[in-house]
Amino acid sequence: MGRVTERRKVLRIRDGVVSSRPDTLVAEEPLEIRLNGKPLAITMRTPGDDFALAAGFLVSEGVLGGQDDLQNIVYCAGATVDGSNTYNIVDVKTAPGVVIPDITLERNVYTTSSCGLCGKASLDAVRTTARWPIADTPPVRVTPELLASLPDRLREAQRVFDRTGGLHAAALFTEDGELLDVREDVGRHNAVDKLVGRALQNGDLPLSRTILLVSGRASFELAQKAVMAGLPVLAAVSAPSSLAVDLAAETGLTLVGFLRGGSMNVYAGEDRIALRAAAAQG
Amino acid sequence: MGRVTERRKVLRIRDGVVSSRPDTLVAEEPLEIRLNGKPLAITMRTPGDDFALAAGFLVSEGVLGGQDDLQNIVYCAGATVDGSNTYNIVDVKTAPGVVIPDITLERNVYTTSSCGLCGKASLDAVRTTARWPIADTPPVRVTPELLASLPDRLREAQRVFDRTGGLHAAALFTEDGELLDVREDVGRHNAVDKLVGRALQNGDLPLSRTILLVSGRASFELAQKAVMAGLPVLAAVSAPSSLAVDLAAETGLTLVGFLRGGSMNVYAGEDRIALRAAAAQG
Repeated sequence: MGRVTERRKVLRIRDGVVSSRPDTLVAEEPLEIRLNGKPLAITMRTPGDDFALAAGFLVSEGVLGGQDDLQNIVYCAGATVDGSNTYNIVDVKTAPGVVIPDITLERNVYTTSSCGLCGKASLDAVRTTARWPIADTPPVRVTPELLASLPDRLREAQRVFDRTGGLHAAALFTEDGELLDVREDVGRHNAVDKLVGRALQNGDLPLSRTILLVSGRASFELAQKAVMAGLPVLAAVSAPSSLAVDLAAETGLTLVGFLRGGSMNVYAGEDRIALRAAAAQG
Repeated sequence: MGRVTERRKVLRIRDGVVSSRPDTLVAEEPLEIRLNGKPLAITMRTPGDDFALAAGFLVSEGVLGGQDDLQNIVYCAGATVDGSNTYNIVDVKTAPGVVIPDITLERNVYTTSSCGLCGKASLDAVRTTARWPIADTPPVRVTPELLASLPDRLREAQRVFDRTGGLHAAALFTEDGELLDVREDVGRHNAVDKLVGRALQNGDLPLSRTILLVSGRASFELAQKAVMAGLPVLAAVSAPSSLAVDLAAETGLTLVGFLRGGSMNVYAGEDRIALRAAAAQG
């Protein structure tokens, strides 16, 4: 785990004054994820929690749904010239009987017969692959005040950001606002995959009473990861995209954006936000 | 081009006061890039400048090096149920005689024989594929004051960000600080690909006298795109990763991070930063 950060010499220029000093950077290395020995994807990630990252990635892709689907995960193959393991290739072996959906093994992930390639096909692919329809989860209700308190708590829990400024973060909270887990990574998708993979390893899927908070924007792919993990609430500090909002509306996901300074926008799934009726306007 | 933004209804909560209103979101749709008819990659992008995005992506992958390598780019195939084009699939046809490097057609992009998969192999792959060694470009020198002025000018040129808050931006400047081009996209890689692709279409590669500014962090892949386009200076508003710094150091790219409020860190290629000797300290 010594590779989460690395030190490099840097020339600092502050208001015209130049100094040379060591700086701490977030580590970035490629990780190849193999599924039953077959290369599936390469992601640039911050080393650490690699098994969780691989498991979470495969939850998002519809391959894994619980601990029982997983036989084991091992580092493999990649060796440097001196024969030492690079720890940059992981192989995920599924349990006997697990059916691998075609979606993970084709490059045209979002192509359907009704539409060569379009946002609608992307939505359909997630909807038909999701194991836990969000509408079926137990009712979760959160107040705006509770949501507003989460970004500060995520920030406090980020350990590496303070030293590098170079990490995306994602955190899981209970509906009562208890911090369950936080992960940081140079790639924002990876931070969420690490959370979801850790939950799978702990037998905690679906995350049907959990709030996912991300430090950046809410893209389609982050909304997809929430839906695939059975998460009812996705909150983002920054803006969502149109397709993320469409996916949330179609699957019943509560999507909150621009969550900062006591304010927020609710783009879908408003029924989970506990509003005081008296405060409602227009 | 009407799809760069989309409107959705949103519930706004500001200090306990709730209101419902339309909100402008950045549009996100999948784009499949085909090379001579063969599917190569899918990216989630903001529609618009799709041909430039495809061309720039192929510069980064080492397929295209100039206008002459390109025969044409067309929208193809993808049709909705009513037969209309989705404009989400582009096919890039290379000119006769263009040799397609293996690197683009394999999933193990960064694998080399000396190392199963590691950061060093990623660096080697870029170094051996790059057409224009940065060290050979004409000498470019920029002052810290000029660099410090660029983020505000990028921000002023961002048209869609003000309405959506959901876009990454990238801009090209001359070494004298003149803004040449700016692109916005829901994906930060895409914004750079659109800039580089447009430059290829205009016959402006290599961009050997140009500064690339990005609104976020400097990852390995963004540094790779700068190197592949022959850009001598990459400046980022936020932090770089360890592998981005290593690639810059190895290829001669000047890499500036945390460029904000008159300050900056120079991680590599310091020789292009015109410092006043009197201001230098320890």
